[in-house]
Amino acid sequence: MHYNSPQPTPAGALVFTTVLTRGPLSRVEIGELTGLSSATVTKATRPFLDNGYLVEEPAEDPSGRGRPRSPLAIRADREFFLGVKVTAAELIAVVTDLRAGVRATTRRPLPECTPEAVVPAIATLVEELLTEPGRRARVRTLGVAVSGDIDRATGVVRSSPFLGWTQVDLAAQLHAATGLSVLVENDVKALTAAERWFGSGLGASSFALVTLGTGVGCGLVVNGALVAGAHGVAGELGHVPVVPDGPRCPCGRTGCVEAVAAERAIVARASEVAGTPLTLAEAVAKARSGNEPLREVFAQAGHAIGLGLAALANLVGPERIVVSGEGLAAYDLIGENLRQTFTAHAFGAASRCTLELRPLSFEDWARGAAVVGIEALLSPT
Amino acid sequence: MHYNSPQPTPAGALVFTTVLTRGPLSRVEIGELTGLSSATVTKATRPFLDNGYLVEEPAEDPSGRGRPRSPLAIRADREFFLGVKVTAAELIAVVTDLRAGVRATTRRPLPECTPEAVVPAIATLVEELLTEPGRRARVRTLGVAVSGDIDRATGVVRSSPFLGWTQVDLAAQLHAATGLSVLVENDVKALTAAERWFGSGLGASSFALVTLGTGVGCGLVVNGALVAGAHGVAGELGHVPVVPDGPRCPCGRTGCVEAVAAERAIVARASEVAGTPLTLAEAVAKARSGNEPLREVFAQAGHAIGLGLAALANLVGPERIVVSGEGLAAYDLIGENLRQTFTAHAFGAASRCTLELRPLSFEDWARGAAVVGIEALLSPT
Repeated sequence: MHYNSPQPTPAGALVFTTVLTRGPLSRVEIGELTGLSSATVTKATRPFLDNGYLVEEPAEDPSGRGRPRSPLAIRADREFFLGVKVTAAELIAVVTDLRAGVRATTRRPLPECTPEAVVPAIATLVEELLTEPGRRARVRTLGVAVSGDIDRATGVVRSSPFLGWTQVDLAAQLHAATGLSVLVENDVKALTAAERWFGSGLGASSFALVTLGTGVGCGLVVNGALVAGAHGVAGELGHVPVVPDGPRCPCGRTGCVEAVAAERAIVARASEVAGTPLTLAEAVAKARSGNEPLREVFAQAGHAIGLGLAALANLVGPERIVVSGEGLAAYDLIGENLRQTFTAHAFGAASRCTLELRPLSFEDWARGAAVVGIEALLSPT
Repeated sequence: MHYNSPQPTPAGALVFTTVLTRGPLSRVEIGELTGLSSATVTKATRPFLDNGYLVEEPAEDPSGRGRPRSPLAIRADREFFLGVKVTAAELIAVVTDLRAGVRATTRRPLPECTPEAVVPAIATLVEELLTEPGRRARVRTLGVAVSGDIDRATGVVRSSPFLGWTQVDLAAQLHAATGLSVLVENDVKALTAAERWFGSGLGASSFALVTLGTGVGCGLVVNGALVAGAHGVAGELGHVPVVPDGPRCPCGRTGCVEAVAAERAIVARASEVAGTPLTLAEAVAKARSGNEPLREVFAQAGHAIGLGLAALANLVGPERIVVSGEGLAAYDLIGENLRQTFTAHAFGAASRCTLELRPLSFEDWARGAAVVGIEALLSPT
């Protein structure tokens, strides 16, 4: 399905990634940075030049002598990428360029979130975004971000408890409905890819992206590459055991971070403490107005997340942890304990890991889905 | 100090590593496996051929037509590597070849373990190993494995609580005493390097090596590379918080794995339970003969390690975890709980991670030190 696109070899992917993240660069500079011979650099860049993904910038000759250098640069508008985030209530879609710059966004409420409703709704959104003049010819790839267990290779949603989906061949259905090449990815991994190539992960050899909300998600980049897990499981910060004899998690285990810190766990515990059913918004409001038992529920959530982050820092030693997600709305209630616990349990220099807190919009999730398409150009085939 | 050795470029290191782990290989096969151009492969292999680290095997032409292939192979006896493991009571030394095959071993008791005593004792051991005919000319590098916080770049032992050392410039002192190029590395990291290149880590994209004993150590390889930690701390399985309100760890934190499962913690708790001071051997013997409270002490240690391993598996998803170390002597007492707890808390497919238990000799640690020298040939300069 990837007609007319450079099919990167390992050297091609390395060269293109180097220009994307550090360019514009001359071929000589690319050779120095990658250790590739000039023959390999020339061979590797050719398909990207032939297809217009790289351009030669006007030659420079700062010294006024010698052969002028023609730096290679990314042509950001060579291709556009569609990204869609699927939530239970709404679709959020964006168009980005090759540098993940957002060119357009749109949203569409979902009356129901069955695959039968979602697939045509995405197709309609896609059609709407492609009608913009000049866009259709430059879009080949649709990235879709879904929470849950995703088989990225086949585009099958193995299980998405939040949407109630099991074994949905989403990529195949969306390809049939749109004609586009479709990549489906776990939403946290998609967001991590965006952060890695175009966010605060850029230049960090290791970092973690943590999302707080319905669940506690975590994408992990180590030695410059996403940690996928030998058996497809990694970054399960939500299921690190931190209160071994603690509450039962919906996953069936006890004492997981999510058993204390997921939205549902907070709501359940807050309702128990208050003696009456509360929504999350009500629990937040009451805690903010000084209700001590409810403040303690949020503090415990922060404590559990802090323990999980300390385990992560002690084992992997990331340069930076970005904490984000809808759960950040209650950050004033969980943040102090989260940071205190992290600091108390991070070992030695691991505590120098930066904890960055960042709000996150649904457009950011959709942009992550688009980056999954861009990433295919950065990965050898 | 690396005279007469190939100074690998990134491409050179990649090519040499590929032949070491997958060879013998023809240049064409190397190009296919690495994605490097044939010009780059030829250029990258030349210094290794010129210096005798790679040899061309007799040409093959299985098809009977076309240009015959001359596979490249490692010449294992081109260089020998010395490795020394320093313990508080003894030095253990080995000589290995370029494939980490052990060619000789020797040991020497240490009356005391001050740097002033250890440096000349190592020099004497080295001299003894180098007197073997033909060996001195082929040894350039001495690897030394020490427990604690090591600055590998400078060869300084920043802190080794077990030896009672602080800021010891061990590499410089040993270089002055032996004339060899000296590399000092944390002992668990050295052992992990041996496992990665020449053991059960070979071919695994991710694995962890865990050592049980005086402390709980862990070396971690993810995406094919050792996890070093952005701030020099990683693999601190011993300090993952697993019993947050649990016993105080010598590190000053509470509830670390080591606070329950290190030898000292087991001995302290066993003595408390028995109401009389016990050695580890006595505690093991009594537990084996059926003393239930003492059996429970070991079971709790297994539980704590199992929780730490589950955190590791859920976060990183390694293909394999090798558990080794002196602590394995009591494996019959801790193993069942270790496995049960790991299985109970490993999330989904992460539980498919292989848990391999392996005895470990002091010669294995010394071989790890030698591999640190071999590794310098696999890493770009």
